[in-house]
Amino acid sequence: MNYQYSNRVSSLKPSAIREILKHTANPEVIPFAAGNPSAEAFPTEIIGEISKEILTSDPIGALQYSITEGYTPLRDLLKKQMAEKNCFNPDIDDLIITSGAQQANELACKVLCSDGDTLICESPSFIGSLNAFKSYNVNLTGVELEDDGINIEKLEEAIKNNKNVKLLYVIPNFQNPTGNTMSWEKRKAVYELAKKYDFIILEDNPYGDLRFKGEEIPSIKSIDTEGRVIYSGTFSKILAPGLRVGYVSAPAEIIQKIVVCKQVSDVHSNIWAQRVCEAFMKKVNINDHFNMLRKIYKSKCELMQKHIRENFSDKVTVTDPDGGLFIWATLPEGADMMAFCKEAVEKYKVALVPGTAFMISENDKTNSFRMNFSTPSDEQIIKGCKLVGDLTKKL
Amino acid sequence: MNYQYSNRVSSLKPSAIREILKHTANPEVIPFAAGNPSAEAFPTEIIGEISKEILTSDPIGALQYSITEGYTPLRDLLKKQMAEKNCFNPDIDDLIITSGAQQANELACKVLCSDGDTLICESPSFIGSLNAFKSYNVNLTGVELEDDGINIEKLEEAIKNNKNVKLLYVIPNFQNPTGNTMSWEKRKAVYELAKKYDFIILEDNPYGDLRFKGEEIPSIKSIDTEGRVIYSGTFSKILAPGLRVGYVSAPAEIIQKIVVCKQVSDVHSNIWAQRVCEAFMKKVNINDHFNMLRKIYKSKCELMQKHIRENFSDKVTVTDPDGGLFIWATLPEGADMMAFCKEAVEKYKVALVPGTAFMISENDKTNSFRMNFSTPSDEQIIKGCKLVGDLTKKL
Repeated sequence: MNYQYSNRVSSLKPSAIREILKHTANPEVIPFAAGNPSAEAFPTEIIGEISKEILTSDPIGALQYSITEGYTPLRDLLKKQMAEKNCFNPDIDDLIITSGAQQANELACKVLCSDGDTLICESPSFIGSLNAFKSYNVNLTGVELEDDGINIEKLEEAIKNNKNVKLLYVIPNFQNPTGNTMSWEKRKAVYELAKKYDFIILEDNPYGDLRFKGEEIPSIKSIDTEGRVIYSGTFSKILAPGLRVGYVSAPAEIIQKIVVCKQVSDVHSNIWAQRVCEAFMKKVNINDHFNMLRKIYKSKCELMQKHIRENFSDKVTVTDPDGGLFIWATLPEGADMMAFCKEAVEKYKVALVPGTAFMISENDKTNSFRMNFSTPSDEQIIKGCKLVGDLTKKL
Repeated sequence: MNYQYSNRVSSLKPSAIREILKHTANPEVIPFAAGNPSAEAFPTEIIGEISKEILTSDPIGALQYSITEGYTPLRDLLKKQMAEKNCFNPDIDDLIITSGAQQANELACKVLCSDGDTLICESPSFIGSLNAFKSYNVNLTGVELEDDGINIEKLEEAIKNNKNVKLLYVIPNFQNPTGNTMSWEKRKAVYELAKKYDFIILEDNPYGDLRFKGEEIPSIKSIDTEGRVIYSGTFSKILAPGLRVGYVSAPAEIIQKIVVCKQVSDVHSNIWAQRVCEAFMKKVNINDHFNMLRKIYKSKCELMQKHIRENFSDKVTVTDPDGGLFIWATLPEGADMMAFCKEAVEKYKVALVPGTAFMISENDKTNSFRMNFSTPSDEQIIKGCKLVGDLTKKL
């Protein structure tokens, strides 16, 4: 058979990260390529207890069909928590549960962008979101990401040079893949551009609670007076990604459209998992929990930075994230980054993600790769940095 | 703010069924409108035990990120089970886990149909699938459904009269909403048309294991020699819908494309739930379990049929399903079906689903409504049939 596919997917390729994740199933490979929360960070005992309670006290409620919007007590808790951070305005916003922030980001695009409409994003950016956007045939346009966030002048140029700019996608905190954080000034500037040129901002904040140094910067959503910001969050990095529970806070009218699209996508998210998230938030002191996570990731990030400093060639530059899970390393000009990553995994058994995976087009040039410090053990971090360091010295 | 939406969703409305489901949250309303498995049908104790085992023996495995294709042991079990029914050919097919059959059906359309391509379905058909297809701007074309399945002559006409027919969507067993089953002859005829006119069949079989009378009829997938059939199944009706675990068996090349689209939709399905399904299939004798379910649904269906016969006006005709969850009732010509359903829920507190919900366009005329026998208790079935019966006598 010669199958014909839709024009949405004929050009889409499997995510390079997830392809590499498959190789990392090999326990011999040091997993600097993953994006998994640290195994130490899972409150497994509490989840076990909570799950037992739920499946004993209300098994049918946890197993039966439920409403698309999500489990009401969980939504109420999140609305309250988001309102405290000015990320939910009860007068204009609504908030629903999604199957991870991935679904929130995908549906925001499905709802707002017709084929050919322009969606602008940081370059580099998170491959999962980029592929989601591409699957809706948008005109995906990347704008250079700097240490303090997207380049504002180039952003305005891109807005002027592209037709029907509907969405700007940004990850302001400890961005994936770079670890960079958008400054307060740039957040305000981005919002002003949205007002000036009449588009919507999709603010993806999966790592916001994982800040382990520096001062917290208010979200773009918190300065949104006009209903221009869609904010997506997730339990994946703060509780457990296997639950597939995320959420999205946005003007109620946009949420209504997202609900209709979520309904046709998966009816609703796993209801047991939603109840686990709700019970967890009620059972623990959430700030103590976040502090526990921050301590783990601070320690792992510092360990990786130390061993990078001690082992990497000076020709290689790396970012210094204030939180999150990732460091972005850049090889000197002229180096062959793809060959470097290939040698790292094949010869040294260290998996890195080639930076091309995060570019808007795989033809865009980059000399960078992504390193993750949350998945590997401390021993793996030390050993992996030594091995990759040896490789950098051959450059 | 005046929001602009994509041309995919601007015409989509929330599903009438799910809107009605919200009203049925009122415990006073008799839930003939739902599609929930019977509360008696949930093996809650076993699920509780299994869940405890999983969260004790391998908590990280059940809570961490996983691969998009799904939990390998579950996929292997399903491949084996499907192969026994000739619904999985190891030489050409692959099988992955989806977030319910809803996601399988949505992604089949996303992968195969570009905007404007024709997707043919039975009329009436399942509203959740119809809305999923509409959200991809297909040319959705309905063909009359008869007691023994889709009208073959009209199907061939529709194929000839529409451009780029890519997919035919059918629910051959105990169809939603009618309860009708496609005959063996029509299954073969449908497959011959797919070969003759070169399109793919999407065979949705959520209720197949719930046959409580008559002889099992082989699936269309079982006669597929060319790789023309995508088959979707689910644990929603045989274990628990809140788990959101379904699966799709199709030629490996098509599955690869569906995997890419699933990846951008929700990364993977809740992994705890996948493991619960796998452990359940291994722990119980699955045929004993199906027999338990069939006994419940046979009894409930017969009870509803008996009380329809005793209470409904002779002017109303109803279908006599061999399995599944639904009966389709048709009012005499000239009756106002919408007013009937409205009066039923508002005055008599019995929720029915107006047949228009299942038509390709809400402007398509129908005098029918859907009645569900799995959700209400026996007492509710008796009481509800009496109340609706009284209403039919006023026709």
